[in-house]
Amino acid sequence: MMTAQSTAVGAPAVEVIPVGGLGEFGMNMMLVACGDTALLVDAGVMFPEPELFGVDLVIPDVGALDTYKGRIAALILTHGHEDHIGAVPHVWPHINGPVYGTAFTLAMVTPKLDEHGVDHDGRLITVTPRQRIEIGPFTVEFIHVTHSIPDATALAIHTPQGVIIHTGDFKIDQTPLDGERFDLHRLAELGSQGVLALFGDSTNADAPGFTGSDRDVIPGFEEIFSSAPGKIIVASFSTSIYRMQVLVDIADQFERKVAFVGRGMIRNSEIAARLGVLTIPPGLQIADSDIRDYDPQDILCLCTGSQGEPMAALPRIAIDDHRHVKVEDDDVVVFSARSIPGNEKAIARVMNHLAKRGADIIIDGMKHVHVSGHGSAEELKLVLSLVQPRFFVPIHGEYRQLAQHARLARAVCPSATVRMLEDGDVLRFDAEGAKVVDRVKTGRILVDGTRMGEVGDEILRDRRHLAGDGLVVAVVAINGKTGELERTPEVIVRGMATDPRQDELLREAPGLLERALGEVPREERTDPGLVKERIRLEVQRMFRKRANRRPLVLPVVLEM
Amino acid sequence: MMTAQSTAVGAPAVEVIPVGGLGEFGMNMMLVACGDTALLVDAGVMFPEPELFGVDLVIPDVGALDTYKGRIAALILTHGHEDHIGAVPHVWPHINGPVYGTAFTLAMVTPKLDEHGVDHDGRLITVTPRQRIEIGPFTVEFIHVTHSIPDATALAIHTPQGVIIHTGDFKIDQTPLDGERFDLHRLAELGSQGVLALFGDSTNADAPGFTGSDRDVIPGFEEIFSSAPGKIIVASFSTSIYRMQVLVDIADQFERKVAFVGRGMIRNSEIAARLGVLTIPPGLQIADSDIRDYDPQDILCLCTGSQGEPMAALPRIAIDDHRHVKVEDDDVVVFSARSIPGNEKAIARVMNHLAKRGADIIIDGMKHVHVSGHGSAEELKLVLSLVQPRFFVPIHGEYRQLAQHARLARAVCPSATVRMLEDGDVLRFDAEGAKVVDRVKTGRILVDGTRMGEVGDEILRDRRHLAGDGLVVAVVAINGKTGELERTPEVIVRGMATDPRQDELLREAPGLLERALGEVPREERTDPGLVKERIRLEVQRMFRKRANRRPLVLPVVLEM
Repeated sequence: MMTAQSTAVGAPAVEVIPVGGLGEFGMNMMLVACGDTALLVDAGVMFPEPELFGVDLVIPDVGALDTYKGRIAALILTHGHEDHIGAVPHVWPHINGPVYGTAFTLAMVTPKLDEHGVDHDGRLITVTPRQRIEIGPFTVEFIHVTHSIPDATALAIHTPQGVIIHTGDFKIDQTPLDGERFDLHRLAELGSQGVLALFGDSTNADAPGFTGSDRDVIPGFEEIFSSAPGKIIVASFSTSIYRMQVLVDIADQFERKVAFVGRGMIRNSEIAARLGVLTIPPGLQIADSDIRDYDPQDILCLCTGSQGEPMAALPRIAIDDHRHVKVEDDDVVVFSARSIPGNEKAIARVMNHLAKRGADIIIDGMKHVHVSGHGSAEELKLVLSLVQPRFFVPIHGEYRQLAQHARLARAVCPSATVRMLEDGDVLRFDAEGAKVVDRVKTGRILVDGTRMGEVGDEILRDRRHLAGDGLVVAVVAINGKTGELERTPEVIVRGMATDPRQDELLREAPGLLERALGEVPREERTDPGLVKERIRLEVQRMFRKRANRRPLVLPVVLEM
Repeated sequence: MMTAQSTAVGAPAVEVIPVGGLGEFGMNMMLVACGDTALLVDAGVMFPEPELFGVDLVIPDVGALDTYKGRIAALILTHGHEDHIGAVPHVWPHINGPVYGTAFTLAMVTPKLDEHGVDHDGRLITVTPRQRIEIGPFTVEFIHVTHSIPDATALAIHTPQGVIIHTGDFKIDQTPLDGERFDLHRLAELGSQGVLALFGDSTNADAPGFTGSDRDVIPGFEEIFSSAPGKIIVASFSTSIYRMQVLVDIADQFERKVAFVGRGMIRNSEIAARLGVLTIPPGLQIADSDIRDYDPQDILCLCTGSQGEPMAALPRIAIDDHRHVKVEDDDVVVFSARSIPGNEKAIARVMNHLAKRGADIIIDGMKHVHVSGHGSAEELKLVLSLVQPRFFVPIHGEYRQLAQHARLARAVCPSATVRMLEDGDVLRFDAEGAKVVDRVKTGRILVDGTRMGEVGDEILRDRRHLAGDGLVVAVVAINGKTGELERTPEVIVRGMATDPRQDELLREAPGLLERALGEVPREERTDPGLVKERIRLEVQRMFRKRANRRPLVLPVVLEM
């Protein structure tokens, strides 16, 4: 069945370059080039590791795209998750043509472009599954896949060298909530016609078995709703639209009002409802400011903060520092999300604060309240079986997951050639086959936004720049029990040009920080994670306002 | 059945004070006092959070024991895990009498005392289960429990106010490897005679169901052994003697030699073999230095480093920096331990390094290769059912686990009174019942040891002291790809008295650090976790050797 697609001798070579997302989770971006035309597939961000103090977003180095300047004829988006669309505003100047994506995907992109003041008029083009777009020598075909967000797609990129399939992110949900099934038929058809290369999502390659359907959480939540005596508060990712739908439906069934709490939840639920991918029965939804007007047993809050992010809704609620939501004795708090590695301690601290207020805390395992959006080993094998590619490249994952996906591919498609790539490798497909012929510079760019909701205040800068703007180490000695400051904080500065305005700030900074921390609740001051974030924000604000500087702020808390 | 134990009016009051282990994992220590006699139950350490830079151990503040000076007539140890015995050398001066424990428990304590130069001659007294020890008004009875370490016990402390049961750490393993069953019969007997109070291990209170037997990992490992083409390397806790036994037995069956790798593994396997709690068939074991003389498929390595600790065996092996063990293409590496929260990123980095060397990595879930040592909800309920205490106090866990255990107790023993205590609360039992009457000062003491194996070089100091010895911030800019230093490091010092010797060091430190880092392998320099630990060690060493100072070292890595 491979014969149909053998490459015409003399057909132009095709080059594929993963710009981000290989060897790391997130920051997914891939370039496909042939002759004078290049396509960019996805432009995602990564959430920073705890080691990257003071950095809010990490995006792939767009300098890697300079080689293709003026030749990137389109940006193709597979779905609307941050790790696939979060960097769209940042790559925008490099794209010399339209942005294609499904309706919901583009609806998630639009507010980002607006926030960055980007004029996107007429350049966002909505596609539907099975639609084919011609771009120079390429025909890009969108194939519907199931994932934890609606309107997700894989891509079949028809090139002069053959068909390249990029899976996007997927699992195989046989009972999708919106009834939109994974288009296995089209994958099978392409597979029997012959596929040059498969680039496959490896996120869950090391999980055995099948991931399961988004419906699988329904029984667990039904149990929770049938016995909860007070409010039910569920924290999940604000892009988990199917999770929202499950909870809205169950809330309706159990006659609880639904309030979305936290900026991302509110915004994404609005977008999803507007596009019809989230259905909220009339009269069910209330504003977060109205929660206190209802009996606790009549309320479901869907909120942000499942990762313990210090400024998100649930962590603020947990220390009784939220304007509208207060946790009380009979409330149930459900963590309906996985813990992203590195966040575990912060999440545990949020849970302890909630437990101290009397909340009953439920995590996945106690009841089944979370399902991954990524396919496990058996789903990856099924896709490999259907596609039967000549070449296979695992993408989306740390090295370990890529290596595991490669193992699965060798077992399922012994005749396929596996190519393990790294970010920046140039994989060239030509009459000879496929090999890495070059390497472009890649890297990470750190974005120092603000988590305080100051929209438009986002500043792009790389490490060099950060280092150039100086480093501030703030050393605060705090009594671990009372939260009292044991002495005036020390503020150490390095790598910052001095001027009189700044000298004054440096003299005053310790006192200013001391006063600012004095106004923070005790519970926040005795929580090392929260107080560090607070110190970072206060010092950042001080230097921004008073000296127009954006140094890297490193909080050091000495617990006494 | 409660009538038998109603308290004689006029019997002296009994006070119980949890000194550590409530609201945190680890650092378990409890004081029981009556009249002029006090007992200390356990003296454990905690492993520091990543936030506590440069700290190797955390122990409860022994200052809390000052109130009972001269009255602590014995230290009773429930079992030999670090979080129960790690602080024995530190509390030693406060104990005015013997230390009681089972044979294996004391065997784990002895080397610690020797390392600290403590003369313990005649003061360590070995007990056996069901043995009763009279200490002043108390009779302490040891009750065998099953846990992930041999020779673990619960305690029944007979007091003038009634029987207090302290579970120690336990699960209910119905098929223990050593055949020593949980002594449910004695618990049942005490329960029907009437128990004043139960202090119960809450570690896994939020896990539903039963934990399972240590034998449960056998089928998973058998599968691994029957198919592994190269070396098998298993990382687990060095105190997991049952895990060692399972692996030794399977290695014997599959004709592989066993090498223990890493200091803790080597020492604990020796102790366990000497005491007969680990049986190694003659000729099976080889030294780590002999591994290279065998074919890879004839080798099982049991090593330390399951938590990604930068200086332990597996993390060194992963970056090809171990004297005796090299990972090769066909090797299988098994992580046979849970990830302690906070360590996930470090563990993932170790896995990626191993995957790059071609190792097949297996974690729990891919095969069943780890079982917890702590009882899940159903096991906790069973113990509550058997004991039927008048008062119940959940111990060992963060607040969330304690609260969950309290919920279980309210369901199983509705007539029991649950008391939620915090470290330092003085719970007084008298004719009136049980209530918190006072609070003693508690806290944490941070121990700044060295992880380099420099035995005897351990220095005790608290935060105040640390702060007084100064703070060194070392800022190193490293190219994320090549590991090259982008410029000479900066070394910032605060809170340190100056003298000429130190001024000289400060001038030279950046260059010294640059040279030291230049000698480190590229893979270590590009791994943020490893390079930070390296910087910390190098700077610590510099200040110790050249200025006789032990500052708190804070490494800052700017990745370029």
